[in-house]
Amino acid sequence: MTDIEIAQKNKMIPVADVAAKIGITADKLENYGPYKAKITFDELRALQEKAASKPGKLILVTAVTPTPAGEGKSTVSIGLADGLNKIGKKTVVALREPSLGPCFGVKGGACGGGYAQIVPMEDINLHFTGDIHAISIANNLIAALIDNHLQQGNELGIDPRTISWKRCVDLNDRALRNITIGLGGRLQGVPREDHFSIAVASEIMAIVCLSRTISELKERIDRIVIGQNYARENITFGQLKCTGAIAALLKDVIKPNLVQTLEKNPAFVHGGPFANIAHGCNSVNATLCALATGDYVVTEAGFAADLGAEKFLDIKCRAAGLKPSAVVIVATIRALKMHGGVAKADLSKPDTAALEKGFANLKTHIENIAKFGLPSVVAINKFITDSDEEIALIEKLCRNVGSQAILTEGWGNGGEGAKDLAKAVAELADNGKADYHPLYELDLPLADKIRKLAKEIYRADDVEFDSAALKKLKAFEDAGYGKLPVCVAKTQNSISHDPKLIGAPSGYTFPVRDVQLYAGAGFVVALAGDIMTMPGLPKAPAALDIDVDDNGVISGLF
Amino acid sequence: MTDIEIAQKNKMIPVADVAAKIGITADKLENYGPYKAKITFDELRALQEKAASKPGKLILVTAVTPTPAGEGKSTVSIGLADGLNKIGKKTVVALREPSLGPCFGVKGGACGGGYAQIVPMEDINLHFTGDIHAISIANNLIAALIDNHLQQGNELGIDPRTISWKRCVDLNDRALRNITIGLGGRLQGVPREDHFSIAVASEIMAIVCLSRTISELKERIDRIVIGQNYARENITFGQLKCTGAIAALLKDVIKPNLVQTLEKNPAFVHGGPFANIAHGCNSVNATLCALATGDYVVTEAGFAADLGAEKFLDIKCRAAGLKPSAVVIVATIRALKMHGGVAKADLSKPDTAALEKGFANLKTHIENIAKFGLPSVVAINKFITDSDEEIALIEKLCRNVGSQAILTEGWGNGGEGAKDLAKAVAELADNGKADYHPLYELDLPLADKIRKLAKEIYRADDVEFDSAALKKLKAFEDAGYGKLPVCVAKTQNSISHDPKLIGAPSGYTFPVRDVQLYAGAGFVVALAGDIMTMPGLPKAPAALDIDVDDNGVISGLF
Repeated sequence: MTDIEIAQKNKMIPVADVAAKIGITADKLENYGPYKAKITFDELRALQEKAASKPGKLILVTAVTPTPAGEGKSTVSIGLADGLNKIGKKTVVALREPSLGPCFGVKGGACGGGYAQIVPMEDINLHFTGDIHAISIANNLIAALIDNHLQQGNELGIDPRTISWKRCVDLNDRALRNITIGLGGRLQGVPREDHFSIAVASEIMAIVCLSRTISELKERIDRIVIGQNYARENITFGQLKCTGAIAALLKDVIKPNLVQTLEKNPAFVHGGPFANIAHGCNSVNATLCALATGDYVVTEAGFAADLGAEKFLDIKCRAAGLKPSAVVIVATIRALKMHGGVAKADLSKPDTAALEKGFANLKTHIENIAKFGLPSVVAINKFITDSDEEIALIEKLCRNVGSQAILTEGWGNGGEGAKDLAKAVAELADNGKADYHPLYELDLPLADKIRKLAKEIYRADDVEFDSAALKKLKAFEDAGYGKLPVCVAKTQNSISHDPKLIGAPSGYTFPVRDVQLYAGAGFVVALAGDIMTMPGLPKAPAALDIDVDDNGVISGLF
Repeated sequence: MTDIEIAQKNKMIPVADVAAKIGITADKLENYGPYKAKITFDELRALQEKAASKPGKLILVTAVTPTPAGEGKSTVSIGLADGLNKIGKKTVVALREPSLGPCFGVKGGACGGGYAQIVPMEDINLHFTGDIHAISIANNLIAALIDNHLQQGNELGIDPRTISWKRCVDLNDRALRNITIGLGGRLQGVPREDHFSIAVASEIMAIVCLSRTISELKERIDRIVIGQNYARENITFGQLKCTGAIAALLKDVIKPNLVQTLEKNPAFVHGGPFANIAHGCNSVNATLCALATGDYVVTEAGFAADLGAEKFLDIKCRAAGLKPSAVVIVATIRALKMHGGVAKADLSKPDTAALEKGFANLKTHIENIAKFGLPSVVAINKFITDSDEEIALIEKLCRNVGSQAILTEGWGNGGEGAKDLAKAVAELADNGKADYHPLYELDLPLADKIRKLAKEIYRADDVEFDSAALKKLKAFEDAGYGKLPVCVAKTQNSISHDPKLIGAPSGYTFPVRDVQLYAGAGFVVALAGDIMTMPGLPKAPAALDIDVDDNGVISGLF
């Protein structure tokens, strides 16, 4: 059976029953159909307070560097949460909501797989509770207001060449990467160069994910730097005096969404920034709600540990005062063999030599996590092609570096298949060895933060900045933004900036092409290599296979 | 009190209780919070059948040509529905859902006003149940798939210069009217000219509003003409084989939304095409649900009778087999005085001469409605500045042309204030005099349909077609689209194409600048004068006044 068939065969319980399991009464829910709900503002505030006084243990799930073989990080996260519940540990999972770009592009949805899924998977993968649509339109209203300001006399003297605010759409649409707008004459706007990003890379997405209240949301929106005036001074969106309208569009978005796993355990699914071009983890509010309602919280950060986990630990945990207790690094034997040089077609053949070589990738991530003061365990997401020899080898390799590899079969057996992992993780989270700290101090100059990341996490020898990028960093510091953390936009397919450098790259120079100020989100984005904030569709997009019947039953979505 | 304050002071009943009033049980609802719901597919089918066998009486509310003085068509529609319910006539109102463009631009929301509103007005005016967001993203996925087809080898040989499919956003964003996309080199798409429309003007909006089932939705999406190949043959979206994915995005959108009036009467609010640049009325499914559940159905078509009513009668009623029973033409004494030449600042002074002169506008609309075989009544939406003399005069003028003017005060008194109107309308709908027929036969050549509209409805002497427009009409006919009806895009501020020609223009030539084929929606759009499918923001947009507090309570939305 396909994932969607398994999900559709499953019988869900009403979301109010899911909420009841974690002490949230039905009157604190805003239902979106019978199986999805947002938490009311009252309850959100109550849970934020509870999370501050009696938080559950926070477990981060990250992974090795992705390969075309797949890793299954969401699947392991969901399976682990179900497994923890199965061994009697009251656990809530907090995940990101999917973007429509991958759904219709290459990667598919983001609700897990097999018997470790969150449901209703079609709704969550498509419009869900409308959060990303609201984020997109809020982002684009800011853009429309900026261009209208230019058109209506430009009182603030904004230099159109400096406008850094981009429009967005939650799709893979490469033709919108570089555009010119405002063409056609005096009544049709002021011509300028513009760009669309995918919505999940937008600063509004980041702001929503980091804001606890509407007041905070508004403060952050006010602080957004949209460009500069002709005197080269930063112009903030607050100067356009329309912050309330943007916040009104986002009022429901900052409330976390509650759904369930196939095993009827609670899942907060909220906020969806990509980890390669944005900060890569679910909202602070969803994590706080999970910490208030679960003794254990499983949360996931996108792509590999050099991206999602690093940003989770250096940006989100620091901003929200979160203290993780343990980290799970997901790997598959197939993926490690690809890092060891095996072609995708040959993955079914046992190859311990390639596995040993590819282990270097996993080893780097294990070491990196330790740099944040956190204990980790390796979850081997099992495939039927994995040989006993290969399994024994990976267990040994992990032991050799002081780690532990645990087979998990959430995909095939749900929580039952993840019980071993659950036991190991609970032990790790309970043993008190975690001593979380960010990788770098905020006092470091911006360029040095990037250098520290590049050397200690990406294992580069040095960083090469484009001269314009260095100048911009200096200007950010002069304008008072020097103490912000850094969010690197780079390929997910390598620990380095270069997707061709699989395994454990070293001895290279990490190039920073451009930097951008996200003053509202509260970080500086550094773009490394050819990374783009708007993906493209492949020759045969996933859209070709998706269909819906006259009862609204969807097929072909994965 | 402002509209939003009245709405927020009102205590709503659960949407399930509203549904119960019209025989819809709670299990046939898909709730979006406690006060909004969609109807399930099962119930939708049942109601479609019931509407075919035992429909209620359909009453269309239209208006005189808009002026800056305001008319209050939605307010009268809602007041009338409440008034009919008050005099014991079981009535359901069917309305369009608001676009975000006017909410943040000039016009404000579209939920009525005063004590004749639909609620929750903030939710309905902002994201509601996500319909317009889903329409926008479906529209833009089609665009992304077209540009990806060009990028990936262009197997269909689409000539990029002929692509007529536009992107859209549900905002007023003039800078997106004329753009160039795909810039930046070989990996960044194929450069071409492109345009954004506001979402409510999109063909997908029209398709959703006219489709009864997902099958019909898919057939229409298949038929969309996206452009031409180098041999000048039309290319349909069906040839890209992604129709199922687009329909999947729209699966919930074709289900009508149920909300309530301030007086707790049922309102189906669904689909929102503008009437100046699109076909201007709520969805066929909403009207069918209302006809199945009410003995009387009040529905509204956008702007004046030359636009919304004409399209309702020539496009929607014909396509859906609807037979209206009566028409209400909304006017205000203030608006008619403006048509008579009074400046806005002077409207408070009684001026019977200007009223008599401005009556010519109302008279034209009364005559036009009769051309569809329908009886009509005039609803005078009362303002405190209206003098007794003026009221007596408008009543006399209406009598003189065989019509009847009835004062209505829904804004100030809700259904109670609209009881006189309700009685007159019920009588009109019950007397069996309606003999609905469209204005023109579908067999007429396309240019002749436009000529007939221009002469009989817009009162032009003749039509002048741009030569390219005439050639396109010929090409549409050669390709088999000659029997489609026509949807004219023109200014709402005049019966003519020229916003400066207020009152009752005549003796002019109606210019058709361009024509567009909406093969999926099933009509040909004719663009007259300088009409644009993407509005712009004013110097001081409504966005300046909107705000939201930490409990999510919105202010400043009107």
